[in-house]
Amino acid sequence: MSFRILKFSGDARAGLLTLPHGEVKTPVFMPVGTSATVKAMLPRDIHDLGYKIILANTYHLYLRPGLNVLKKFGGLHGFSGWHGNILTDSGGFQVFSLSDIRTIKEEGIEFKSHLDGSLHFFTPSSVIEAQDIFGSDIRMPLDVCPALPCSDEVLKDSVDKTIKWARISKDIEPDKKKGLLFGIIQGGISKAERERCCKELIKLDFPGYAIGGLAVGENLNERLEVILLLNEILPQNKPRYLMGMGKPEDIIDAISRGVDMFDCVLPTRNARNGQAFTRKGELNLKNACFSTDDNPIESECECYTCRNFTKGYIRHLIKAREILASQLLTIHNLFFYNTICKEARLSILKGDFHEWRRRFLKNFDK
Amino acid sequence: MSFRILKFSGDARAGLLTLPHGEVKTPVFMPVGTSATVKAMLPRDIHDLGYKIILANTYHLYLRPGLNVLKKFGGLHGFSGWHGNILTDSGGFQVFSLSDIRTIKEEGIEFKSHLDGSLHFFTPSSVIEAQDIFGSDIRMPLDVCPALPCSDEVLKDSVDKTIKWARISKDIEPDKKKGLLFGIIQGGISKAERERCCKELIKLDFPGYAIGGLAVGENLNERLEVILLLNEILPQNKPRYLMGMGKPEDIIDAISRGVDMFDCVLPTRNARNGQAFTRKGELNLKNACFSTDDNPIESECECYTCRNFTKGYIRHLIKAREILASQLLTIHNLFFYNTICKEARLSILKGDFHEWRRRFLKNFDK
Repeated sequence: MSFRILKFSGDARAGLLTLPHGEVKTPVFMPVGTSATVKAMLPRDIHDLGYKIILANTYHLYLRPGLNVLKKFGGLHGFSGWHGNILTDSGGFQVFSLSDIRTIKEEGIEFKSHLDGSLHFFTPSSVIEAQDIFGSDIRMPLDVCPALPCSDEVLKDSVDKTIKWARISKDIEPDKKKGLLFGIIQGGISKAERERCCKELIKLDFPGYAIGGLAVGENLNERLEVILLLNEILPQNKPRYLMGMGKPEDIIDAISRGVDMFDCVLPTRNARNGQAFTRKGELNLKNACFSTDDNPIESECECYTCRNFTKGYIRHLIKAREILASQLLTIHNLFFYNTICKEARLSILKGDFHEWRRRFLKNFDK
Repeated sequence: MSFRILKFSGDARAGLLTLPHGEVKTPVFMPVGTSATVKAMLPRDIHDLGYKIILANTYHLYLRPGLNVLKKFGGLHGFSGWHGNILTDSGGFQVFSLSDIRTIKEEGIEFKSHLDGSLHFFTPSSVIEAQDIFGSDIRMPLDVCPALPCSDEVLKDSVDKTIKWARISKDIEPDKKKGLLFGIIQGGISKAERERCCKELIKLDFPGYAIGGLAVGENLNERLEVILLLNEILPQNKPRYLMGMGKPEDIIDAISRGVDMFDCVLPTRNARNGQAFTRKGELNLKNACFSTDDNPIESECECYTCRNFTKGYIRHLIKAREILASQLLTIHNLFFYNTICKEARLSILKGDFHEWRRRFLKNFDK
């Protein structure tokens, strides 16, 4: 288990992260597999796209199929048939965004299941234990993620608990051969709180750091300032993971500010809504203008979808509510996100990341 | 374009049907691709399962995407990216089963679209023209398929129109290099009407014959009697296609009565309802008893699903309403249906079809 930076280009980094289920080249995008499946994708096809790591959600898996089932299958790998790496989050974010009722206590978070209303209690140690049962290659400690804007008092309290719970989690960190426990930095858009949280976590010497609590109500500049600040404070030799982001331009911006890892539902969720990512921006394939379009989504794209299918056919599948529409668009969008990270990495290795970024964004803004 | 019988075993036949998009070994099951997609399947995966021919529905494709769109794409092959053969039905059956209002006239059938209520008129020649635009490898003439039971008068009239329309269709039969026009035999469960319809169609010398109007209300014995009767009348050297059937045991029974071709929504539709076909019968994977079952659907099955996934995982996917459940079960069920036809064919070639059938059905009834 190691992280090695091979090359810098400005602040952008090309690295190699060694995990229990194989090497991961960074910058890396991780497809979201909420319930132990990346929606509409055969695991074989995720692998064939070049992905070596996916994300799954502790909150969802804890509720369904539940820890007893996952224990019986020897964890997520045995359960899902995915042979690459798996990162699981702490469940904290979903408790805040999905659960009907939640109470933040000193020892953890009490919440009602969005599935059946049953009452549950997440503590730092219960969440670590769950991820141990999952056999996650990268694990996250329980944190408190306030919706923005919030009062100074709420923000300070969320950082206090995040630090305290990180400490408890670190004490029961897994054997590094089985998985890495990252620290999660909270603090909203307050420079002081972000700095405080980050520095306290660095003292605990995590093998990697996640930037949480963004894309929850702040504007773009506020977000970039936070990433810029943390880029200056975080140790260079540890991987940095920006949680839950984002659009292609967000990812490229964050790479330029020293971030290595990303996850987001956009490529998969938007695919199921009929949207394709392209080098010129997003396409809504539901539009009637595509009904007789016999070109692929992108002529130069080498994904299975673009090599074999036209926009007109995909538009028909969307209108007819055919599952194949979701399958083909998910393949294309995940190919696209992987390509962005691959190209970014190659340009960093060649030392011309900023030129690649300029060209990509110029085209993309069209 | 030819059909050659390689071997009989009793009345069961192993044949080779040469079509514009390649050879098809019979007996053959054709997956249903209603709207120019076999639901939840990538065309690549249908091909990899060994299928050389699929079915698509004229009624659905005529309404959506419509003939103008399909013309622009040069037909179904250019539109869908499927490189194998395509059989299309006449649309008659769907007009009877899906359309709100329909009037059978001397010249054709008037009906309202189930999508938007718009009024349409199918005639023998309009249906042939549609299938010419589709570029279908096997085409069907417009027929009248009455729901059973029905009066003698209604039955006789349906056979009269079916014969008359078959004659009109035959007059505009396509160039055989582009596609084959089969005749459809109607007549309900009346031996006299079936015989009359069959003999009239034989006079027209179609390159293949379809048995329509079954599985619409008759019982199993009545159905088998019809197939038995037609087996005696139909010319041996032409392929015979039993439309819309059926369960594994139905297919095997029909093979033993000289039928060569089959299509049915069961393997694909039941997959989307959480059901798997196995050598011991059907499994409902929604059942709670499978939640911790770490065996594949069938231990000896060599499909992608059984080689990589457990019943417990598939049950979880169904409960979480994940698309992957439909994908994995469709792959398994289509593999299973293809395997039945392959094994039946091999046993016919070896001359022991009836022994294979006995063994299969004994196990299957468990």
